Parts: sequence; C-alpha cells; structure tokens
Amino acid sequence: MDRKLRYAMVGGGPGAFIGAVHRMAAALDGESEIVAGAFSSSAEKSAETGRELHLDPARVYGSWQEMLKSESERTTDRIDYVSIVTPNFLHHPIAKAAMEAGFNVICDKPMTMTVEESEDLCRVVAASGCIFALTHNYTGYPMVKQARRMVADGELGEIRKIVVEYPQGWLSTLLEATGQKQAAWRSDPAKAGVSSALGDVGTHCENLVHYITGLEMDEMIADLSTLVEGRALEDDASVLIRYRGGARGILYCSQISIGEENNLTIRIYGTQAALEWKQEHPNWLYMKFADRPEQILKRGNSYLGEEAAAATRLPAGHPEAFIEAFANVYKNAARTIKARIEGREPSEADLDFPTVQDGARGVQFIHTALRSSQARAWVDAFYTPPEK
Amino acid sequence: MDRKLRYAMVGGGPGAFIGAVHRMAAALDGESEIVAGAFSSSAEKSAETGRELHLDPARVYGSWQEMLKSESERTTDRIDYVSIVTPNFLHHPIAKAAMEAGFNVICDKPMTMTVEESEDLCRVVAASGCIFALTHNYTGYPMVKQARRMVADGELGEIRKIVVEYPQGWLSTLLEATGQKQAAWRSDPAKAGVSSALGDVGTHCENLVHYITGLEMDEMIADLSTLVEGRALEDDASVLIRYRGGARGILYCSQISIGEENNLTIRIYGTQAALEWKQEHPNWLYMKFADRPEQILKRGNSYLGEEAAAATRLPAGHPEAFIEAFANVYKNAARTIKARIEGREPSEADLDFPTVQDGARGVQFIHTALRSSQARAWVDAFYTPPEK
Amino acid sequence: MDRKLRYAMVGGGPGAFIGAVHRMAAALDGESEIVAGAFSSSAEKSAETGRELHLDPARVYGSWQEMLKSESERTTDRIDYVSIVTPNFLHHPIAKAAMEAGFNVICDKPMTMTVEESEDLCRVVAASGCIFALTHNYTGYPMVKQARRMVADGELGEIRKIVVEYPQGWLSTLLEATGQKQAAWRSDPAKAGVSSALGDVGTHCENLVHYITGLEMDEMIADLSTLVEGRALEDDASVLIRYRGGARGILYCSQISIGEENNLTIRIYGTQAALEWKQEHPNWLYMKFADRPEQILKRGNSYLGEEAAAATRLPAGHPEAFIEAFANVYKNAARTIKARIEGREPSEADLDFPTVQDGARGVQFIHTALRSSQARAWVDAFYTPPEK
Amino acid sequence: MDRKLRYAMVGGGPGAFIGAVHRMAAALDGESEIVAGAFSSSAEKSAETGRELHLDPARVYGSWQEMLKSESERTTDRIDYVSIVTPNFLHHPIAKAAMEAGFNVICDKPMTMTVEESEDLCRVVAASGCIFALTHNYTGYPMVKQARRMVADGELGEIRKIVVEYPQGWLSTLLEATGQKQAAWRSDPAKAGVSSALGDVGTHCENLVHYITGLEMDEMIADLSTLVEGRALEDDASVLIRYRGGARGILYCSQISIGEENNLTIRIYGTQAALEWKQEHPNWLYMKFADRPEQILKRGNSYLGEEAAAATRLPAGHPEAFIEAFANVYKNAARTIKARIEGREPSEADLDFPTVQDGARGVQFIHTALRSSQARAWVDAFYTPPEK
Repeated sequence: MDRKLRYAMVGGGPGAFIGAVHRMAAALDGESEIVAGAFSSSAEKSAETGRELHLDPARVYGSWQEMLKSESERTTDRIDYVSIVTPNFLHHPIAKAAMEAGFNVICDKPMTMTVEESEDLCRVVAASGCIFALTHNYTGYPMVKQARRMVADGELGEIRKIVVEYPQGWLSTLLEATGQKQAAWRSDPAKAGVSSALGDVGTHCENLVHYITGLEMDEMIADLSTLVEGRALEDDASVLIRYRGGARGILYCSQISIGEENNLTIRIYGTQAALEWKQEHPNWLYMKFADRPEQILKRGNSYLGEEAAAATRLPAGHPEAFIEAFANVYKNAARTIKARIEGREPSEADLDFPTVQDGARGVQFIHTALRSSQARAWVDAFYTPPEK
Repeated sequence: MDRKLRYAMVGGGPGAFIGAVHRMAAALDGESEIVAGAFSSSAEKSAETGRELHLDPARVYGSWQEMLKSESERTTDRIDYVSIVTPNFLHHPIAKAAMEAGFNVICDKPMTMTVEESEDLCRVVAASGCIFALTHNYTGYPMVKQARRMVADGELGEIRKIVVEYPQGWLSTLLEATGQKQAAWRSDPAKAGVSSALGDVGTHCENLVHYITGLEMDEMIADLSTLVEGRALEDDASVLIRYRGGARGILYCSQISIGEENNLTIRIYGTQAALEWKQEHPNWLYMKFADRPEQILKRGNSYLGEEAAAATRLPAGHPEAFIEAFANVYKNAARTIKARIEGREPSEADLDFPTVQDGARGVQFIHTALRSSQARAWVDAFYTPPEK
Repeated sequence: MDRKLRYAMVGGGPGAFIGAVHRMAAALDGESEIVAGAFSSSAEKSAETGRELHLDPARVYGSWQEMLKSESERTTDRIDYVSIVTPNFLHHPIAKAAMEAGFNVICDKPMTMTVEESEDLCRVVAASGCIFALTHNYTGYPMVKQARRMVADGELGEIRKIVVEYPQGWLSTLLEATGQKQAAWRSDPAKAGVSSALGDVGTHCENLVHYITGLEMDEMIADLSTLVEGRALEDDASVLIRYRGGARGILYCSQISIGEENNLTIRIYGTQAALEWKQEHPNWLYMKFADRPEQILKRGNSYLGEEAAAATRLPAGHPEAFIEAFANVYKNAARTIKARIEGREPSEADLDFPTVQDGARGVQFIHTALRSSQARAWVDAFYTPPEK
Repeated sequence: MDRKLRYAMVGGGPGAFIGAVHRMAAALDGESEIVAGAFSSSAEKSAETGRELHLDPARVYGSWQEMLKSESERTTDRIDYVSIVTPNFLHHPIAKAAMEAGFNVICDKPMTMTVEESEDLCRVVAASGCIFALTHNYTGYPMVKQARRMVADGELGEIRKIVVEYPQGWLSTLLEATGQKQAAWRSDPAKAGVSSALGDVGTHCENLVHYITGLEMDEMIADLSTLVEGRALEDDASVLIRYRGGARGILYCSQISIGEENNLTIRIYGTQAALEWKQEHPNWLYMKFADRPEQILKRGNSYLGEEAAAATRLPAGHPEAFIEAFANVYKNAARTIKARIEGREPSEADLDFPTVQDGARGVQFIHTALRSSQARAWVDAFYTPPEK
C-alpha cells in the first residue's frame, strides 16, 4: 500500500483539546492523513476547523451521521478509519455506526457510558472485523513498555504491591460553573457518564496496571467523594484493591488535588525488585532492589528491550513526551489497519495498542468502584471482557 | 539550674540500633548527659555498654528494676529522666514504674502494647505530674514544623485530602528467621504487640498527620496483609480514612516494599494550596498552588516561621537530618523538664513534643486498623485520649 | 493561502538521524508537507527514502543540484522552502544555491565550516530576500522562551554570572573507528569542520545564552582537548567568558563525559534572581531568589508569558519535549515564509527563530575558541555579524 | 584510656556560627568533652559562652594566650586538644602556639593567610609530633568516602574530566556593610586573607577533588571577580585546570550566585564511568555508565565499601547530614589522638582526616589562582607540600 492511511475525525472542533492531540499524533509519523471530519455539531464550527486543516470543504460535515453516510458512498479516496474524540456519551453510537459501516475506529476513553454499551461494542468489533483502538495513551510511552517487558521477564519476581495514582488539581474550584468547556462536559452526567475523576483519569490508572502487569482485580473497596460543593460527579477517589494472585493495590485519582497537573505515577513492588514511573518525567524508569543500587533506566539506550526501542523516535537524551506516546498508539493501530487492508496478519508488535476489551474492563472498573463506594463495602471486582 | 540534665537509659545495649540514636540526640545540644543505664537484661552486656560510654560502673545495672530502685535512693546527682528504648512490650511497665518513682520519661514508640496500657500511662502521667515525651521523631524536623505552622495559618485553606505513606522494604524476606535482632523482636507478637508495619512505621504516619493538621479520624477501612510467608504479623497495610470535617485520607505503610528505605512522604491538599514533604530529603518542603509556580521552601531561611527557626541549628544549605530532628524532641522535652525542676512554666515552644496522649492515639489507631481489617469493613475511628 | 507549505529536503536518507526529526517537526502542526527531496548522494538510497515518505518518485532526486534545478523549473506546486539536514560542509553551498534560486531555507547547525562562508550566507540572505532559519532547536522550548522573557522584563536584575553546559558521553570511545555514521562525519574535519564538540553542542550553548540574555561576548579563554586517542577533532571544551557589561561565564561542552546524554543545562544569576533550565526535563524552569522560596515554573500555566504560551501545544502536565521544541522553530519559520508569500509583514512572534546572523555568530564562536585554545590565552571574542 | 578526650575551644563565642558546629560534631559520638575555652577576645563574652556550656568558670579565658598558659600548667584533667574556630588570620599563631605547648589541634579552614605560614605549620607539626586535623568537613560524608574508594578501585577507569562547583548567594549584596558578623570578617583582607570566595568555599572544592581522586594540579587559569561594588575581595571565581596525568577540570565557586545555598557538587568523568555527588542531598551518590542504567548508591547499604560504612551512624533511609560528616572528621582525629595518648599506632581508618599538608595545598591553591587571575594567564599549579 503505497500511500498514507486516510482518516476522518468526529469532534475536535474549536475550543476542544484532545482532538488536536489526536491530529498531531496521527501526523507525527507521516503514515496517516486527515481527509474528512465532523468536528462539531455546528456545521459552521465544523467548517471553520476544516479550513484550518486545509481540508476539502466537501468532506467537512455538520454531523457524524452525515459524514459516515457520505464517506461510505465514496468510491475513491475513501477513509480507512474514524477517529472519535467527542465527549464520552457519543463514543458508543459513533463507534458502533462507524464499524457497522465498515470503518476501523480509534476512540478516546473512557470507551462508553455503561457496561452494556461497552459489551455491545465488543460484539460489534467481533462481528464487523474492524480494528478498534482505544487511546489509553500512557501505554504508548517507551518506558511503560519497558516496565511491561521487565514484569513479563520476571525481573520483579512475584508482584506484591501496586500503588498507582493520578492526582490532578484543575477542578479544585467549581470550574464547570464558569462555562469552561472541558470542565462543563466532564462533570455533566449526561455527557461524561456516572463518573468524573474515575472516568477521566482513574481508568488510565486501571489500564496502566493491567497493561504493565496483566493482573486482574479480585476485590476492591472504593471511597468516592465530591469535595467541591455543587459538583454533580465525584472529583476524588481512593480505592483499595486485591488482585488475583494476592497482590495488594492502592489506586488514587483526583481532580481536586490542588497544584497537581498530570502527576500519574505507578510503583510496583515484587519479591525481587520494584519499579517506579512518573508520567511528568516519562523518559526515566526507576528500578529498586533489596541489595543493589537503585537504577535509572533512560529511554533510547541499548540496554532496553525491543518494545521500548520500537516505540522510540529519538536517541537518548532528546526527551520524548506525551504526543510521541500518543502517536505510538496511533502508529500501531495504523499499522494493524494497514496490514488488514493489505491482507496481511499484523505483527505482534503492531498489535500493541489498547483494545475494545481493555475499554470494557475500564468501564466495568468505573461502575464497580461506584457500587463499592455506595455500598461502603468490599465488592467483587473480577471481570472478564467478552471474548475477542 | 547551672548544669546539664542527667539521664539513665533502659535498653540500647550491644546490637541495638535506636538506643544509640537516642544518645546522640541527647548529646547533640550539650543539655543532657547520660549517667546511668540498664542497657540489657544481661548484666554483662549492660556493663559492656556502660564501659563504652565511660559511665561509672556503679550506675550501670543489670535490670531496670534495680536501676530505678538504686537511682531513687541516691541523694546526690540523681537522674532527672529515664530514656526507654526497649522493645515495645517493656515500655509500659518501665515507664509506669519510673514515673511512680518520680522520674520523668522519654520513651520510644509505639507507646504500649494495648489500649488499656496506654490509657493507664495517661493516668500515671496525670497522677505523677511527671513529664512524658514520646519520640515520634519526625515531628522534630524543622520543615514538618513549618508545615504545621502553614496549615494552622490557613495557607492551605480547608484540608480536603491527605496522602501519607511510609514504605520500607527491609522485611521483603523472612529476615526474622535469620536471627537479625531488629527483625526478630519486631515480628514477634510477644515483644512487638499486635502489629509490625503499623506499629513500627504506620504510627509515624498517623502521628505526622495529626501533628501537622490537628485532624481527628472519623472512620477508616484498613487492609492489613502478611505478604511474606511464615511471618507472624502484618507487613503491609493500606488504610482509607475519613477525617472529622470531611477530609479524605490514604495511609500506606509497608515493610515489603522492596528497595524502599524510609520513604516517609506526606501530601496535604487544601482548598488554597497543597504541601509535600519527603523524609529522605527533609530540608525541603514543597508548596503547590492552582495558579502560581510551585515553591520549594528550604530549611534555614528567613521566610520560615519561628517554629522551624527554633528547630534549626545550621544555616540554609548545610543539611540537617534525622539525628537533629530526633534531638529536637529531646531538646524540647529536656527544656520542659528543666523548667519543671526550676519551678517555671515551660514555654509553648518547649512543649512542642509528642505526649502520652499522642501515644494513646497511636495505640488506638493500630488496634482500630486491625479491627477494621479483620471485619473487612469501615469502622468508627474517632478517639479522644484521656484528658491531660 | 489556503494550503500547506511545500518543502524539499536535502539529506536525511537511510541511517541519518536529524532528517527524521526535521520531518516530524515539520509535520506536527500540519502546516508544511514534504513534496520533494535529495535524501542521499546515492540516487538509489534517495529513492528508498522517497518511497517511505510516499513521495512522487519524479520529485525524488539523486543530487541537490538536480533537485534545485528541477524544482526551479516547475510551474505548479513549486516548493516553498528547502530543508537542509546534511553534514556541515554542505550547508553553505546548498543554502547559497537554494536562495539564489529563490527558495527559502531551513538549515541545520553549525551553519557553515568557516567564518567567510557564514558571512557569505549573510550577504546571500540579504541580497535574495529569502527567509533563512537555523535550527538551534533548544530556543524552541517554551520554558526557554519564558526565560528569555523574564530576563528581558528585568526579573533577574542585572546579569552577573552564566553557567551553561552541554555534556555528552557518546564519543567516550573511538566510535568513529567502528563505522558509526554519525560519529564518522562529526569527527571528520572535512565534513564537520574545525570542531566536533563545540560545533555540535557548544554552539547550542553559545546560542542559548545569546537567545535568553542578548549578551555579547567580550573576551574568552578556551581549553579544547582531544581526550580519546586517535580522534581528529576536540571532544571536550571548557571556556571562560567575559560578556559585555561585566557578566562572567563558564561554558562547558563535551562528548566524552561518559554517561551523560544531552544534559544541556543553563543557569543565569542576576542581581535579583537566578534561573535554571535543564533540557532533559524541559517543562520546568527554576527560579531562585535571595529571600523567597525557590520556584518551579511549569509549562502550560497561565502565569507564564505569551511567548511561552504561543510555543505550547498541550495543557500543563502533559509533557512536551524535543520534537515539539524543534517544531516551534519550523512553525515560526513557516509562518514567516507564509507571510512573505502572502505579501504580509510577519508578526514579531513569527520572527522568533534563529537567523543567519545567529549562525554567523556561532561559527565565529567556534573559530575564536579554537584560536584561544591554540594560543593558550584570553582573546577578544566580540563579534558583530553582518547587518540584516 | 577509659575516659573521654578533653578539649578547649578558641573562638565560637556569641554570634559565631562554626564554633557551635564544632561543638556538636565533637559531642555527637560521646568521645570528646569540652572543658575549657577562650571563646572571645572579650572576657565577658567568653564567660557568657562558658556559662551556656556549663563549663568551670576557672577554665574559661579572655585570651587564647592565657588559656594555653593556664592549661599547660595544669597537672590534672589537662586538655588533649585545642579546637580553633576563629577567623582565618588567627589560625596560624594559635595553632603554632598550641602545638609548641604540646597540644594537638583541630583547626578550621583555610588553614592560614599565607603560603609561608602554612609551610611553617607543616614544620611545627613535624617538629612537635602533635596531631593536626583540618576541618575540610565535606570529606567526612560517607558517600564522599565511597566516591574516593570507587576511584581508587578503578571503577571509573582513567579520569578525564572533573567539574566541581560551590555556588553560594549569601553575598549577593554588600552584606558586610550591614555589620553582619560573618560577612564582615570574611570580606576583610586583614582577617580573611587575600580571598573571600576561594578561601571560604573554593578550597573545599580543591580539597574535595584531591581527596576523591588524589590528582595533583598541573596548570590553571583563573578568573576572579568582585561583582558586588564596594567589596574588598573576590566574590566569584572560575578556574580551568589541567591535572597531572591529563584530566581537565573546571572549578567554580561563588558567593554571588543568588538563590544558591551550599550547592557544592562534584562530577568526575572517567573512561569507564562517571560519578556525581551533591552536598545538599548528601546521602545519594550517582554513577553513570556508557551502556548501563544510571545508579543511585545510597548511604547505609551493604553494597558500599568499608570506608563509607565506618563513617555511617544510621541505617539506610534515615538521612545523615552536615553535622554527622563534620563529626566524622572529629571522630577520626580524636581516635588518632587517643591512639597517640595510649602509645598505639592509629589505624589507617583513623588517619582518614585532612592534614596540615592538605591545608598547605589549599593555601597554595588560593594564592596560585589569585596570581593567575592577576596575570590573566595560565600558570604552573603543581605543588608538593612539605614532607610529613
């Protein structure tokens, strides 16, 4: 296939944040080009973004339904995938319709509003044969891939304790009352779903643990709180977890931890060694031992595994960051889509991106935590997403 | 009073760790001198330590009972206080007997084995009029005192979230089976009490939160685990807390977090600002805000409050550390004892050391956490120690 | 101009490093697209890269001369600029020819081999009216722009001392003898010029100081060393500097500082405050004061100036890094080129990229340092590049 | 010898800083006790300090001459050594007189005002047979001892580059004009000697390099500056060094680096590895390699050498700092003095403290740097102190 992949975006119009990130991520490696979009439910705003992106005005739409219909009818230069960057409540209908129209999908998280929707999407993926990637972008960091590799290689021994946290402070005030767009929809149950903190950042924690360790939760007890008066959803959550196999966990996410930006940090303690990774300084991975000096593994070095190397664009010392990690999710999803188009099996490396099952697990996590918090009790947290 | 205070030590013989720390702490400021001791239940070992310390052999004893009796009978150069650095199970009987003999006491933590014992000590302190200080040494750090001052001054606003942790890794293996002295008694219920991790380091977390914020716990749910097979007590604990007034908390302490040394860290998030302090780099205190740059406050500077200044011996940039903080507990307790001897009221600054009530609260915390973990349920955690 | 800018690249074929960085930088914001290239002096290798980039084979050339000729003759879809990413010795002839053919240029650094060449380029830029941008990419970091702004605003007071360093360790062994491509040309005087360490990383130091402070050097004494036996050029340099106005400076660059990656760090001490910035953690800028807490300014916050804001793509806490900074040089150069094409004056913000005069100053710096080191003496270092 | 060593102090009266540090250092291990002093040239102030220290008033003197005379005449409880903590200009006469009276000496740095005085002291030490220790206290840090050990063991390979710096900011204003005691004498040539920055902190840099590496300087070029108008001595110095054997060095010390406290940092790059140590976080030592992860060695661990272990009082994770390091100089000097008293040879470990020859080298360094700066030229910097 001697061309770039073509994609259309839903969402990401004026004032949005994450849409631009998806576009930069898709552009970085020169393997995908945006050719169409329904950037806003306002046709005018959608057109405005289309112009900024130098798109053919004929392929800029005022609704995603129109876009899917029109793009489906094209006979040439048809899009290869749809990138969905809308508020949460639209993920399910758009993704479902896109795949039923035969388009592959790259979708933002959390995947859906309800567990039922998430399981429905699992079925749609299976039935359609489409590629579906979820942008749990932190899995795209090279040093996260290195962490996963080291756990898999047994370098930590058996895992005993996991402490994962994602404190933010941006909702320390009732920002949604000021009309700020992000805050408005994220704290609106109709658009964000049953959760704010867990849905936005807590699921990243859950996904990161699962990505690195493969561990499944067994039980949990959650304490969800709304600490800013007048807010409709929780803005702080603390969760104790017991994983299958016996590891203990603490998961802490928050939007009212004032002064924190995106302080996602994970620490994993095993019988042989521990690792620590901090998203705000993502090029370094710390390894701790009982009787040896602590180590700082740095992105780009020859002593790292092939997964980290494959996710690396620059030599050591030239820091890579958020967009590059995001682009790694796009890159692998795009390669898998390309393999599909070319009738090849994607490589195992290409398949290293979050799937619809990961999305279903995340949605289940949110709802289980909510249930535990309401019951003020330990609850069963084990979950097996529908089969691939 | 134109002399140094005189003290005797119980415990701290050959192979012990904390006894030497107490002696260095007492010696640092030149206000106390050790003149007697019952360093070991072996008269021979006790004498060996006495010789190393250049003590008068007549005042080195083979049992604390003998020591208290003999020192009580002295008419000259009588000791002013007793320093208790034995394993936990001896704290109560020795402290009680010492105070009943009219001696002030400086005692290591956790204060007692049981809540009943701790309340008994509260009564003995009240009845005897003796000074009793508990060496929750982390409260002696200047930047911890600064943190307390800033919370009291309202610089954080109303407190919403507290995350305190003390991960250690030194018991990642069954060290007690090797005969290592520290490990042996700390994991022996007969000597350490009902808890290992909570008793040794968890109570420091509890005390640190209370010292800085003054907040009382309302409810808690704890998950205590023994992750090293064959161990008699818990070596890892995660606790969710709701404080009176609405703040949420996470407390995590561990002896199996491999590679960690004494990584005591506290983060307190308020409505106006947050603070963070790390024991392993104790001279710096971090302040975070919603809309201003993060700040690093450094020990020894003129912009700090008088409490931090009073606890500081060296100019900024010459780091102070563990022994100096420990010495601050001794210094204030000694000043209070001296004031008592001289018939003066101690100043408020002198009274800045952990008390028998702090000890009682700590013991209660341990037992409440244990109860919650066994019940696997939220439990009432509010506690008012007996009146002073 | 309702289209992306079109550019061609010279260099950046198989095995090259910096070419791919330029392409990612150009692609990131979707404002430029590569349409042509002479990626290698081997037509075959050039074609290979062209295919990977999905270029029209007709516009992939085996020599830059051929490319300039052919592109000049096009009547449609002509390139707007040429990106030069070859080894140093080709910068001058290609840039000169490109501009004489009417093409704008974005060129890697150091700009030329000799002072004469650099001054020649200054004249060509002036005569041709073309836009010429030099990729001193570190000036593209938002926090570097913030540093510049704060110095200009007088927040540091009068500058007294500057310490800038760029230690690397990748040439700690005679890597060029192994055939490693980067090492081979960088240590070959015919391709790299008179300098290795100063040319590759020292000029970044020189440029960074000038960019942030605007200070001009007055005198310098340099100590250049070749510490790996068998190497043709210097691999370590220490320079003491006196700046016009009285500030003192230390500049240290090295390729044999084993274990260092790209540890570019700058510290600027003024009469009122000091700043520190570290390239390997580029989102944070430290400010130090005599009597206030140290501050950490973080990219993406509202308290930063408009220059930093304009160079920022992501909210605070989502780290940006090397490629994004590089892309900022491209973005501003591209906007200036676009303004020129549209017959507008570029804004002052658009003109924030390194120029041919900056390049001339850098080349002069290299040669002056070499002269000082050979003479083992302080030498006059003041230099005024040819007028714009 | 079944007693503590007895010492007298000269200097360290009201308002002094370093005297109290020496007293804490001497007290920490319980091996020395202060019994006499001439704390001030004012008999009244001297008596005031004596009272604070609970000393026998008969042994508190108004002049050091009187003290030496009176203590010499004692037949019982005679002092074992004199601790000299006066401004620089008094070091030589007091140390000389003390040793000629048969007293061992522990003296603050820089050792003397002139090279002649320093060589005179070397002769006095040799002739008197007294022990003389200089408090280059940074050599007392366990991780500095570990660094020395690793260099000696060849873990860094052959040393190529040394970067040592000690920036301070406390003299960023003309503090001496305000009457601040420290600033007044340190910037007064009559009391401090020919240098301020080099004498106070630059000699620590020089000594630290020599202590860790054993390297001798071959040549240097220095740039000394007085950046605060009205100051009598230099407050900033940058020095390039060539060491015997070919290593290159940069030494930077400053008192006008605003916002810096005691930011002493040393980096040593060899052919096999590099190390980095920062005084403000003294418990950690960083090791960097070409092809392995960076390491953080932490005080108190079993993987460290015996020198670091011997200098350690607390387990890993309980930070030790400035006073403890200072106390290590005292401890070793005291052990050596004790061995001498007991007629034993001190062990090699006991002899690990800075000597009169180290002091002479430091004084020579100051004067050579001054000469180079005045000549604005490279000068010969090789120096062999008089034989032991």
